[in-house]
Amino acid sequence: MAGPSIKTVGVIGTGVIGASWTLFFLSRGLKVIVTDPAVGARERLAAYLSQEWPTMERAGLHKGASLANYQFVNNIFDHLRQIELVQETGPERVDFKRQLFAELDAKAPRDALLLSSSSGIPSSQFVTDCKYNPGRIMIGHPFNPPHMVPLVEVVPHPGAETPYITKAVDFYRSLGKKPIVIKKETPGFIANRLQMALYNEAYSLVTRDIVSAADLDTCITAGPGLRWSTTGPFVTNILAGGGNFKHLLEHIGTAAKVWTEDMQKHAFDLNPKTINLLDGNVQETIGNLDMESLQRDRDQVLLELMKLKSKTSSFE
Amino acid sequence: MAGPSIKTVGVIGTGVIGASWTLFFLSRGLKVIVTDPAVGARERLAAYLSQEWPTMERAGLHKGASLANYQFVNNIFDHLRQIELVQETGPERVDFKRQLFAELDAKAPRDALLLSSSSGIPSSQFVTDCKYNPGRIMIGHPFNPPHMVPLVEVVPHPGAETPYITKAVDFYRSLGKKPIVIKKETPGFIANRLQMALYNEAYSLVTRDIVSAADLDTCITAGPGLRWSTTGPFVTNILAGGGNFKHLLEHIGTAAKVWTEDMQKHAFDLNPKTINLLDGNVQETIGNLDMESLQRDRDQVLLELMKLKSKTSSFE
Repeated sequence: MAGPSIKTVGVIGTGVIGASWTLFFLSRGLKVIVTDPAVGARERLAAYLSQEWPTMERAGLHKGASLANYQFVNNIFDHLRQIELVQETGPERVDFKRQLFAELDAKAPRDALLLSSSSGIPSSQFVTDCKYNPGRIMIGHPFNPPHMVPLVEVVPHPGAETPYITKAVDFYRSLGKKPIVIKKETPGFIANRLQMALYNEAYSLVTRDIVSAADLDTCITAGPGLRWSTTGPFVTNILAGGGNFKHLLEHIGTAAKVWTEDMQKHAFDLNPKTINLLDGNVQETIGNLDMESLQRDRDQVLLELMKLKSKTSSFE
Repeated sequence: MAGPSIKTVGVIGTGVIGASWTLFFLSRGLKVIVTDPAVGARERLAAYLSQEWPTMERAGLHKGASLANYQFVNNIFDHLRQIELVQETGPERVDFKRQLFAELDAKAPRDALLLSSSSGIPSSQFVTDCKYNPGRIMIGHPFNPPHMVPLVEVVPHPGAETPYITKAVDFYRSLGKKPIVIKKETPGFIANRLQMALYNEAYSLVTRDIVSAADLDTCITAGPGLRWSTTGPFVTNILAGGGNFKHLLEHIGTAAKVWTEDMQKHAFDLNPKTINLLDGNVQETIGNLDMESLQRDRDQVLLELMKLKSKTSSFE
């Protein structure tokens, strides 16, 4: 069960996430067998891959990478013998995933890793009908878009087995991703919770008219967000504490309690009225975004930033 | 009261923040008159400025910038005639600031901007003895270190006057900073609250043993933190909603409520036991950081990232 030796993967679903995974795996020199029952899915995937391939070339391809290394099939179950790992991106419905994974578990090679991209359904809810080797089934939740952003949350269910968890982490890492392991299933896993904690306070501050939506965005992109692209919460705290995390925590404790209590007092409540207040402020202060050029610029900066980090010993 | 025409500024205090402001103002071609009553302050400032000046040269100096353009004085009140703007970085004590600003207000030119770097004391608490022109006094709170990070939170007290708020914003902007206006004084202003909202959930997840401190850091630096260096919460939401903020908010509402309720249920409580749990995990999974090379690498990446952004039309 050597980790990074995987050569052929299956991708189920070619929506936004599945197409992006396919692009990513191809750029890493893997063979991909991919399926989606939707009308026109085959053509849409081909068009997407051709359009995005130059971006992956600029970012740097792994050895053997080729746009020709994928096969769109009608029935993935006919091809499972060749597949060493499945990355599922089907609909977010428990009944769908339960049936799909029961069939995958029955028909895939007994050691193949079966990973779901689900952001919301923990795998303990859909391994219930898997009779053969449920220990190799878990979540591999990407951060959108998977071909750009390195984070993958690996979330095992309580019955998942350590060698398979290690294998999933090694697999993603061998492709240049930054996998993390969520030790216990928890609503929203980690990334969505951390984001939402910040967003809830952002929504509260803007609905209370403390700051405009535009200025709040600037606050993040010119302040904490800049630093968080290099150092996470704990390392940032350690640096602020002059190397001593405990000292920092004891030091900021009193001030932080006042802020936290005030935030709890004004906790954001999502309802039609607050949605309208927020939307009004966004319309007024952020206005008409040129979505296309913004996304292109963002992806360009993120690619360069990731190259910069990979060349810097502290962040490689 | 033309904004960016300011040529000479005063800096009160040469601790970490005051020294960094001095370095920054000098790199922008300003003349700086600076004071600090601490023994050895003059020498420490001189050593710091010499050491850090090459970094500012690499980042790019403004016209007329020179390390020679500062004067360390024993009594700033003797020099107020020349000063158009004061950036105060004294001790975080209300009584100290109240007395200092009363004297500055009485002795500085009537139109000079008087800005405090305070992170925690809103200016309404220390303008109470200012009899002459309290409308030009407000907070200009930098994000550490001021010579690197563009964010400045401009926080007026209720009696601050709009032309002076505009002048402060224009001043910082003319130096390449990204000032934002906090419309109502609020504990922690904005940046510290947003950080703390995320940190509280981070602390909760690690003390609950859902994820390690090291993996939590990776989650941010390889996921949301990467994106937040380019797009803030609202623009990120707009992009995720395909251009429609309201749609995104209505769409994520149900899932977000489940996460939020679970976060509230497990809200972090800072106490000796949780501090020990967190510190233990940090020691175990983050280990011995090479602080010096980490900070050097971080500053290098941040400088390059800011250059990249300034050359990209969506982020300049």
